[in-house]
Amino acid sequence: MPSTESQELNNLYKSISARSQTEPAPELWMMRAMFEELVAVGREPEDVTYAEVDVDGIHALWVKPVGAAADRVILYVHGGAFVGGSSASHRKLTGHLAKASGVQALSIDYRLAPENPYPAQLEDAVTAFRWLRAQGFAAERIVTAGDSAGGNLSIATALKLRDLGEDLPGAIISLSPWLDMEGQSESLDSNAATDLLISRQGMAAFTYLLLGESGSRTDPLVNILRADLEGLPPVYLAAGGDEVLRDDSVRFAERARDQGVKVELTIESGMQHVYALRVGAAPEADQLIEELARWVRPLIDLN
Amino acid sequence: MPSTESQELNNLYKSISARSQTEPAPELWMMRAMFEELVAVGREPEDVTYAEVDVDGIHALWVKPVGAAADRVILYVHGGAFVGGSSASHRKLTGHLAKASGVQALSIDYRLAPENPYPAQLEDAVTAFRWLRAQGFAAERIVTAGDSAGGNLSIATALKLRDLGEDLPGAIISLSPWLDMEGQSESLDSNAATDLLISRQGMAAFTYLLLGESGSRTDPLVNILRADLEGLPPVYLAAGGDEVLRDDSVRFAERARDQGVKVELTIESGMQHVYALRVGAAPEADQLIEELARWVRPLIDLN
Repeated sequence: MPSTESQELNNLYKSISARSQTEPAPELWMMRAMFEELVAVGREPEDVTYAEVDVDGIHALWVKPVGAAADRVILYVHGGAFVGGSSASHRKLTGHLAKASGVQALSIDYRLAPENPYPAQLEDAVTAFRWLRAQGFAAERIVTAGDSAGGNLSIATALKLRDLGEDLPGAIISLSPWLDMEGQSESLDSNAATDLLISRQGMAAFTYLLLGESGSRTDPLVNILRADLEGLPPVYLAAGGDEVLRDDSVRFAERARDQGVKVELTIESGMQHVYALRVGAAPEADQLIEELARWVRPLIDLN
Repeated sequence: MPSTESQELNNLYKSISARSQTEPAPELWMMRAMFEELVAVGREPEDVTYAEVDVDGIHALWVKPVGAAADRVILYVHGGAFVGGSSASHRKLTGHLAKASGVQALSIDYRLAPENPYPAQLEDAVTAFRWLRAQGFAAERIVTAGDSAGGNLSIATALKLRDLGEDLPGAIISLSPWLDMEGQSESLDSNAATDLLISRQGMAAFTYLLLGESGSRTDPLVNILRADLEGLPPVYLAAGGDEVLRDDSVRFAERARDQGVKVELTIESGMQHVYALRVGAAPEADQLIEELARWVRPLIDLN
């Protein structure tokens, strides 16, 4: 059972779900407005300042905890099914994660689908990684992190860099990632009754918005469950036990371990998609952020 | 002519206006979602931290510029026609104003209409003022500030305190306030063609949401243009030359001066409603914030 405090996220998901199932379907701006509501379920991280920055044409938010290490950074890639969400909707989550980890975060507003089909999102994440390196951050002191669609991109960025022979991030954090573009995870059906936000049909619709009619559903840089994972840095995955995307994480963890990647996997019983969004206000979210920070700090040479 | 940078606010207002004129009319959550988009037109104030606080049952946001004076404060009351807006939608504006003024701000999420009809909004603002005093802030070192509906409340709070014989704030800042509940300002018609967001019909609809069928439109604590203004602290009003609410400010300034109140009035030619929302990103907004700060600092004994 999730804590009483976590029920607030459940309530928001129920509300979004109800407002999404109208006839006619919500317009794109309405869907995006609902994604922006996610920020309200978290609580402000204190002692964090912000600044906007242009990252080679990509709008981004610097998230700067007071006293954070200056030479290590989280590249945060927000969720929103590739069509919504922003550095603003995920500002509190990013702030808490950065603060707990003792580093700054750069949260990018990558181009969204359907106006910008895949691989615009991955290109922007790679651009941001290179931009951080050009600012002087060593690759191994950059953590790529994200949730949902951004959890996909946080891994895909490392895969793309590996394929290009470029240096990789020191660690990857992937929260409730959406990794499977073919809809083969069992939890899509077995958790259909417990997931308050997402459904198989919803994922099919978002896949269409991202890839169109003809885009490959088996391209290993978007369908991460088809990817060769060898050489990836350590990856931390966390998902809710009640969400339909749970098995995307479970299947990735199995494959990654088989291929020699160090993987941590947390499946939190009874929890929903990206339950870390309730950070600062619910114990499950706070414990996850603490655990992520404890895991990531030594990987980027911080105590 | 507004600057190129200010056109971004104009574009958002046109977009909101277009999305508001649908058949059927937008639902309440859609209207509120559009108000939340306002935060995106401002630019993050740097070196400002945030914390959430419970103010005698009212959710509020502490806005804390690094190095701000600890014993002076702006009580910020956001706009949104009494039915929308939040400390989040006005976070950047509040942050810039607080930072330029050298003080912290407390931005309150007062109860909204129509779920909470008038005077719930005024009661909450008064509650917050008293709460600040209970925290140790001297009344004369509190500035009440707000925009649009919040510009009304920033004045009404002082009027209510005066009526009750309580100590008054040291200054009032009121940006593009909505003060007239009877629709008698000439600019409602003369600026109908230039205001990109608000119309006479829109204001009538919002009046109904706030006051219902039977609520008084001449109560001087909500129709501020009917109020006895004697004894008010200095007031700074700023409005756009192209907005339909322009004359609410002009008429208030005339009445206040007649009654011995020190008033500053800026009507910025060619500008829209609450053009300060574009702060950090457009010169007109930045100049106004600087001017407000220069004006308010000596009134609360800051250099």
